[in-house]
Amino acid sequence: MTESELIAHLKPLLPTNDFVVTGAGDDCAVLELGAPDTQTLFKTDAVVEGIHFTADTEPERVGRKALARCLSDIAAMGGTPTAAVVTLGLPRGFDPERVKALYRGLNRLAAQYQVAVVGGETTTNPGGWLVNVALLGTVPRGRARLRSGAKVGEALFVTGDLGGSLAGKHLDFEPRLAEGRWLLEFAGVSAVMDLSDGLASDLTKLLAASGVPGAELRKSAVPVSRAAREHARTSDLAKPPFVAAVTDGEDFELMFTVQSNRAVAVLDEWKEQFPGVRLSCIGKLTEKAGVWVRGDDGLRPLPTRGYEHFA
Amino acid sequence: MTESELIAHLKPLLPTNDFVVTGAGDDCAVLELGAPDTQTLFKTDAVVEGIHFTADTEPERVGRKALARCLSDIAAMGGTPTAAVVTLGLPRGFDPERVKALYRGLNRLAAQYQVAVVGGETTTNPGGWLVNVALLGTVPRGRARLRSGAKVGEALFVTGDLGGSLAGKHLDFEPRLAEGRWLLEFAGVSAVMDLSDGLASDLTKLLAASGVPGAELRKSAVPVSRAAREHARTSDLAKPPFVAAVTDGEDFELMFTVQSNRAVAVLDEWKEQFPGVRLSCIGKLTEKAGVWVRGDDGLRPLPTRGYEHFA
Repeated sequence: MTESELIAHLKPLLPTNDFVVTGAGDDCAVLELGAPDTQTLFKTDAVVEGIHFTADTEPERVGRKALARCLSDIAAMGGTPTAAVVTLGLPRGFDPERVKALYRGLNRLAAQYQVAVVGGETTTNPGGWLVNVALLGTVPRGRARLRSGAKVGEALFVTGDLGGSLAGKHLDFEPRLAEGRWLLEFAGVSAVMDLSDGLASDLTKLLAASGVPGAELRKSAVPVSRAAREHARTSDLAKPPFVAAVTDGEDFELMFTVQSNRAVAVLDEWKEQFPGVRLSCIGKLTEKAGVWVRGDDGLRPLPTRGYEHFA
Repeated sequence: MTESELIAHLKPLLPTNDFVVTGAGDDCAVLELGAPDTQTLFKTDAVVEGIHFTADTEPERVGRKALARCLSDIAAMGGTPTAAVVTLGLPRGFDPERVKALYRGLNRLAAQYQVAVVGGETTTNPGGWLVNVALLGTVPRGRARLRSGAKVGEALFVTGDLGGSLAGKHLDFEPRLAEGRWLLEFAGVSAVMDLSDGLASDLTKLLAASGVPGAELRKSAVPVSRAAREHARTSDLAKPPFVAAVTDGEDFELMFTVQSNRAVAVLDEWKEQFPGVRLSCIGKLTEKAGVWVRGDDGLRPLPTRGYEHFA
């Protein structure tokens, strides 16, 4: 049983109530807590030693990453983060100085984005370090950008460069909060999500959430990172750069869809707003089922082996 | 360095912002998210295999406990729980049927208290199972019951019976939500917290938060659980029942303080409201420093060796 199958089983069984606008399954939940102009975003995420970082990763970067991952989900919804609570799982005999350093990294990023850290829980976790962050955000009422708004014929965009994140970006990436809020205001944007499991895997989720059968990517338009190219050049075992770009996880870029008549406008205005962040139109959503790549060698299915948590 | 010392170091360094009414250090954080009549409570907590449950604990009860602990914190603030997100750390090669069972237990308790489960994250946790729950609640504006309101001369109460929770109550306890909301409305109640680390340890925290120097307990008034008595009778290594009652953790009862002229009223009205839940007036808060117990053998210091997470 894969993670996806298990989640598909569990999701419909979760209890709900009148506070819930959007429940489990999007980047964040959207809640209605009684504020007249805003709704509340709610997200949880964990990083674990040996999975999301190694024993020798600097603890400052571990703390930073734990919060940054949640910030990326708030960004995808077009929200503004407000308050976080932190759970720290610690092996027996841990070094308290490493805990302080972890909090330094987390606190610094929180302060940068005006996020309050309002609670912390510590517990023994015999297998190693674990950091869980639960994060709240705020979004204008009824405006949160979901995964489910995309339609056939729309253009598909990604921010930044893809692939090779393990070389360092997975620890030091900047969550696309300003960009997400800008997309919230931009007419014609229909669906947004953040890329955490790899483009191929995440695009499949966006299509499923939107009820769109497929997509066609232009191979030459997919922004392959320097790290993915470098890795391919220096290791015989590495994936080819394009495969890395579409299947490596932890990009923490935004993927979004735009009505086709607004595709040029979004590119033009983006350049003015975010001159330092690349925006690429990588393809379009199709009536034809499945995800396909058009390259020099014609139309081929997209490599889909993204990061599966339990692989 | 103990857990308390580490937390004392970390707490003042946490970033804050205008959304925060009460930050880290109480049972829940209190946030101001723009609703006219209510404020939001926010709490996170984790249970870990080998620490809070064993490998052979039924997974339904593990899921139940993970949520119930957070509900107990919402209860202490006088709040009503609204929505939870769950992080599940799983060892490699876990049995998906156990995950389903864990969620059955958690979902059932959530449904019982009308809590929505709006997000779940799963990750590998090499050392064993871990369940983190982050929970939101709602409380009437400006009314959340903190630990910090107690004053010298007030009477000290606890609900239920104390000690011996590991015999089963730590998995199956009923969070005191109705009782907590009732205390919110009762004039004269000044401070409330839930008992998770043992009466001696938690009372020390309440006194410190309130700036009260000490307390005097009446030994015969402390409600010792049947489980604590039973354990003492059947094991030569067990703590004496009174020591168990004041130092065992995981009672998940409410401890609260009441103005002395309201102490009889709270006992009388409690009996009407909650005939099935014992309420005990166990002592009073004092100008004299430290926590003391008055028994047949005079006045002695309270045994203070409660549950320390890193012991």
